[in-house]
Amino acid sequence: MLKLYYAPGTCALASHIALEEAGAAYTTERLDFKSNQQTSPEYLKVNPKGRVPALVTDHGVLTETPAVLAYIAQGFPKAKLAPLDDAYAFAQVQAFNSYLCSTVHVAHAHKGRGYRWAAEDSSFADMKRMVPKTMEACFALIERGMLKGPWVMGEQYTICDPYLFTLTGWLDGDGVDLATLPKVMAHRQRMAERPAVKKVMEDEKR
Amino acid sequence: MLKLYYAPGTCALASHIALEEAGAAYTTERLDFKSNQQTSPEYLKVNPKGRVPALVTDHGVLTETPAVLAYIAQGFPKAKLAPLDDAYAFAQVQAFNSYLCSTVHVAHAHKGRGYRWAAEDSSFADMKRMVPKTMEACFALIERGMLKGPWVMGEQYTICDPYLFTLTGWLDGDGVDLATLPKVMAHRQRMAERPAVKKVMEDEKR
Repeated sequence: MLKLYYAPGTCALASHIALEEAGAAYTTERLDFKSNQQTSPEYLKVNPKGRVPALVTDHGVLTETPAVLAYIAQGFPKAKLAPLDDAYAFAQVQAFNSYLCSTVHVAHAHKGRGYRWAAEDSSFADMKRMVPKTMEACFALIERGMLKGPWVMGEQYTICDPYLFTLTGWLDGDGVDLATLPKVMAHRQRMAERPAVKKVMEDEKR
Repeated sequence: MLKLYYAPGTCALASHIALEEAGAAYTTERLDFKSNQQTSPEYLKVNPKGRVPALVTDHGVLTETPAVLAYIAQGFPKAKLAPLDDAYAFAQVQAFNSYLCSTVHVAHAHKGRGYRWAAEDSSFADMKRMVPKTMEACFALIERGMLKGPWVMGEQYTICDPYLFTLTGWLDGDGVDLATLPKVMAHRQRMAERPAVKKVMEDEKR
């Protein structure tokens, strides 16, 4: 049985949705980020990086969203969550998810987690001011080219979709003008209507 | 024929080494970062993100190091650069490479590319001061648990190794005390002795 460690409002939402879409048998364990449960000695035994998601499998613990998503796609091939038999198409999926984790998520994180990379309050304020601009630039690339439509990779729904949906959910709070992103917003709406997404959003609200 | 766009001193070195280890037929094209060739109109047609690596394949262009590396491993299975038949082991490879791109590379980038996330000189200076600490913390996790030895994933050399080697090469300039990282340093030495690595290092020097 798989177990997903997550916290509401984090990128673990992508893995949570993917598990649901895959029809996986899984349980969840919620971490309370307000009390810094992710850096508790108990959780650091699960994931020494002190982050979510962490997926406990029969073989061991997996971390990092792109890896967890690819593992779910490979473990539940009937759900067709990735083009597993086409190395180039699979690499495109990986490239998209890699961009989200290394560039888009990082841009967003400078709003509230500037202490990861700096120490002064003036730097945190400076970083915060930049977030609308950097997130807008990231999403402009997605809007103009990367999001093929109706799903990220075109006709086939993949593990890119819950990940994009997760980061799109941060745009309102990041001060990005959503009107400049009609394709991204239509994708968000399309995602919100999926039964798996509805179920997971309800679960995480509780 | 594959074509790799790279610049010396960048993370594209990982893909360059992987191509050589795979025995791939490939050419390279060097970009001059000093004249900002990566943001020239010509190159933005190849990679709208204005970054390296970009790998031109018969199917199209691939970007993002973890995706390029996995594509090379899948395209040249005889080189055994990833455990392609074991979803959990493959996910561990992906998790390692994902950590390098989204956390370690990002920590390093705050030394010289703070303008990506802030605007003030004082912020850049603050970020720079933090780099030895963040890089040390990242590499402490690698040293203590992630690097199994002799290679990252244990006995089998994989696409994690050239990527780790690439980022390890930045530690001197980042002000990290290398004496605290004996396993990482031994890995670096082991890598430097591989014929493929020697060849690529020579190529990139020219």
